[in-house]
Amino acid sequence: MKIALAQLNPTIGYLTANAQQILIAAQKAASFGVNLLLTPELSLCGYLPRDLLLNPSFVESMGTTLQQLAQDLPPQLAVLVGTVNLNTLATVAGGKPLFNTQALLHQGKVQQLFHKRLLPTYDVFDENRYFEPGTESSTYLLSQTRIGITICEDLWNDEEFWGKRNYAVNPIAELTKLGVDLIVNLSASPYSAKKQYIREAMLRHAAIRYGQPILYANQVGANDDLIFDGCSVGFNRAGELVCRARAFEMDLVVVEFDEEQRDLMPASVASLPASEDEEIWNALVLGIKDYTRKCGFSQVVIGLSGGVDSALVAALATAALGKENVLGVLMPSPYSSDHSVNDALQLADNLSIQTHTLPIGELMGDYDRTLAQLFMGTQFGVAEENIQSRIRGNLLMAIANKFNYLLLSTGNKSEMAVGYCTLYGDMNGGLAVIGDVPKTRVYSLCRWRNSKGEVIPANILTKPPSAELKPGQLDRDSLPPYDILDDILERLINRHQSKVQIIAAGHELEVVNRVMQLVARAEFKRRQAPPVLKITDRAFGTGWRMPIASRWIGESW
Amino acid sequence: MKIALAQLNPTIGYLTANAQQILIAAQKAASFGVNLLLTPELSLCGYLPRDLLLNPSFVESMGTTLQQLAQDLPPQLAVLVGTVNLNTLATVAGGKPLFNTQALLHQGKVQQLFHKRLLPTYDVFDENRYFEPGTESSTYLLSQTRIGITICEDLWNDEEFWGKRNYAVNPIAELTKLGVDLIVNLSASPYSAKKQYIREAMLRHAAIRYGQPILYANQVGANDDLIFDGCSVGFNRAGELVCRARAFEMDLVVVEFDEEQRDLMPASVASLPASEDEEIWNALVLGIKDYTRKCGFSQVVIGLSGGVDSALVAALATAALGKENVLGVLMPSPYSSDHSVNDALQLADNLSIQTHTLPIGELMGDYDRTLAQLFMGTQFGVAEENIQSRIRGNLLMAIANKFNYLLLSTGNKSEMAVGYCTLYGDMNGGLAVIGDVPKTRVYSLCRWRNSKGEVIPANILTKPPSAELKPGQLDRDSLPPYDILDDILERLINRHQSKVQIIAAGHELEVVNRVMQLVARAEFKRRQAPPVLKITDRAFGTGWRMPIASRWIGESW
Repeated sequence: MKIALAQLNPTIGYLTANAQQILIAAQKAASFGVNLLLTPELSLCGYLPRDLLLNPSFVESMGTTLQQLAQDLPPQLAVLVGTVNLNTLATVAGGKPLFNTQALLHQGKVQQLFHKRLLPTYDVFDENRYFEPGTESSTYLLSQTRIGITICEDLWNDEEFWGKRNYAVNPIAELTKLGVDLIVNLSASPYSAKKQYIREAMLRHAAIRYGQPILYANQVGANDDLIFDGCSVGFNRAGELVCRARAFEMDLVVVEFDEEQRDLMPASVASLPASEDEEIWNALVLGIKDYTRKCGFSQVVIGLSGGVDSALVAALATAALGKENVLGVLMPSPYSSDHSVNDALQLADNLSIQTHTLPIGELMGDYDRTLAQLFMGTQFGVAEENIQSRIRGNLLMAIANKFNYLLLSTGNKSEMAVGYCTLYGDMNGGLAVIGDVPKTRVYSLCRWRNSKGEVIPANILTKPPSAELKPGQLDRDSLPPYDILDDILERLINRHQSKVQIIAAGHELEVVNRVMQLVARAEFKRRQAPPVLKITDRAFGTGWRMPIASRWIGESW
Repeated sequence: MKIALAQLNPTIGYLTANAQQILIAAQKAASFGVNLLLTPELSLCGYLPRDLLLNPSFVESMGTTLQQLAQDLPPQLAVLVGTVNLNTLATVAGGKPLFNTQALLHQGKVQQLFHKRLLPTYDVFDENRYFEPGTESSTYLLSQTRIGITICEDLWNDEEFWGKRNYAVNPIAELTKLGVDLIVNLSASPYSAKKQYIREAMLRHAAIRYGQPILYANQVGANDDLIFDGCSVGFNRAGELVCRARAFEMDLVVVEFDEEQRDLMPASVASLPASEDEEIWNALVLGIKDYTRKCGFSQVVIGLSGGVDSALVAALATAALGKENVLGVLMPSPYSSDHSVNDALQLADNLSIQTHTLPIGELMGDYDRTLAQLFMGTQFGVAEENIQSRIRGNLLMAIANKFNYLLLSTGNKSEMAVGYCTLYGDMNGGLAVIGDVPKTRVYSLCRWRNSKGEVIPANILTKPPSAELKPGQLDRDSLPPYDILDDILERLINRHQSKVQIIAAGHELEVVNRVMQLVARAEFKRRQAPPVLKITDRAFGTGWRMPIASRWIGESW
């Protein structure tokens, strides 16, 4: 018996196009003689339409599209499609109005429904906002094979693997008791660095522990801040990897389930990225490509400062969209060093992207004159530095508006964390490409890219970082060295460590206090940041929900 | 027996200051011979610290502060304090690590804990992200009186009142079965217009249905986007209102519970605002006051265009902070009409606030020259209009940065909905004061204010609205009339109506299509907006979670 995994890239809410993706995969699978096709969680609407789900007419559209799809699919092929389903008991029994469902389509009809049971409500997940958890796990009988259906989080509750129980119930244990031959898991599991290694370890553990072959079909593509890496996999009953779909690309993998051996047979195994840098690089390229395309843009504009952040974003954008679709804009001020301009031009030359140079000295002078009376007797300071950054932001947005480019912002995670960035200035843009990439990782990504052929001029990687908003300014005059800063931030943000723990790890009290205060004070900036492509287990954005008018950090000094 | 309601205004995370507020209320209550003091939900940390709750050291600080508070309180007084409590079974049984708890402090110790059972996960609420629901309702015996403890949402599940069941369990029904004499409800119920009428109707219904007197203690004050209106109330067993704390102010209300009659006796009843406009006005004034203060500012700056939106924000800010703490900045362009400048100056004169005038014509010319080569052969359009708005935004932020003012943004809900506003321009600011106020309500709030003595010049209210970004521009050339637009938006946003329903209500297909498309397309702007003070049941901000790269609206045309 043949089963196929369709690793699809839906656009949120674009039901007809998503149904078309499923249909094309099904036709291809049918041509291979496949019996059952798996598609990811919510494959009809994409993960996750968020508050579109509160709109009854959106839910109705999904129902209509699903019925039509059932009729359009090859009748001999069974297809599991991710959709939502009305919880008809909600108003009587209490509960949310929808289930997160997989619908089994076969012979022109919706034959069976499977509801997700474990609904994540951490990090970027809000599923309890929309969905009622399913109350039982059920199976689908295909030929002689009984298949247990699970959806994403349903498999993420193994207290042996995690060292703690996350939810009261454990669907895979229940399905095993029911006597199934195979577990399938339909997922939309967002990317973070090295997460695939955790997924595979967890699935292997489950296969062995429950003695079940497991097929896991993941979404691919990026939707706003979330990148989905694909990497759908299968494990046989012994916990051996039998197939893996490609990372960061759509794919269709066919695998044989031997009904006599009641196990999955070896099939194609795509390799994983060779290094963490390569993996993150590929994730960010996909993030740029999909956000641009799904928002209806084809070209992007980037401010090139001659620094490492904008260099990396330009290189990523060129990889994502092609050199003809990336415009670099240089906006030197009287404080810009010659090397900044030269480095930026050299970078653009290496990438073969077009540039424009718009000096901002005159505009700076005009702002000074406009504010002269009001600012009389004050010292040059942050206000004046920000004016420069905002002049650049205004020019970039003017170009974006005029020529319908998407502006990519170039701030890294370290500076967004401590507020070393200008709101309405260098933070401007539709997408914060490297807003979840710490500065130390920015460097290693550049070096990885250069290892494939130098595009980022060496001088950009060796000179000390500077915002160049006043003469001789260097980041290190305002911030701890980035290796120290990034370690503190990782402990604070990703590991929820306390001040005491961070100091115990070898950091100086004064530095830790200062960083914690900076992070707390910069919350108002992050609140107004564009979506940040998520590549770590805790990114600024959907999964970071902090109060602004708050005092704890100050108090805890 | 005397019970007091302390209507407190905590700052998020500011544990020592919040504990101090509780202590002061307790000392006052003790001096009145009160036996039991009620404080709002999470009164120790404020509602809601959000992801601060993921930080174990924050939770630990709360525990320490609570223990200290127990020792500091007058020993003879029992005090219910809102805090969080560790769910020690979480890692074994599955579940979230915390409960949303009321701790009963008495005689120097924490005597008893009560956990919230119904956790809201709609609109602005994410409580399942942090909390495990309590599994049982319990009571506290004070003298001869058995008191049933509920927390906020616990009482919001009456299927008779709502016409549907919201949750499977109903704590008040369970408590009634246990045989209680009085129900208390400790809340942090955010404001929306006219919500108090719903709360009181619901509480009255519950008092009558279950034959229970009910005391409801609400938080007051604003935390980021959420305003809490206070209006704590008591209902006797017959469903009659026996007390009400003041709207939008801290308050302490003492009420007698007669142990023989087993009922609440009449006490002080503060009046509610006389009109919806007065209510919303007061809410916004509190929102400005608390955001400014809790962020550590004392002064604000506002761009005065001569239009109605900035006029309203200036009048609100003056009411909130005093005329000496509000600076108005006029930034006329060559497209600004004389009446704009005159109207803005007249407004400032009426409010007695200081102004500065910074003409932007030269800066506009400089941007034109800087971009001339790049824009050669293109027509004046949105790019040029936005440049003007962003020049103003830059000047306002320069002033804010230089003098440590908070910049208030002045966009209304109608324009934020359809994107009739400039990102990084007029959207700039730390707080979007009227971002949840539809344009038609902006006018009625101005008229209400003028009815107390004219401050907003009549001409501002009678001239046709214009952004004045090109000669002769009027809002009505780009948008439907505001009464029509606001009705469509209300149906779309607040009532989740479909296109078919909105058209059935009398709107033209073409207009509805255009508005729906504009709303969908403007999502990227709203994502980067400052916190919006919430005054309706669906505001842009925490309770509005929409995808950006999404296609449904376009498809559904």
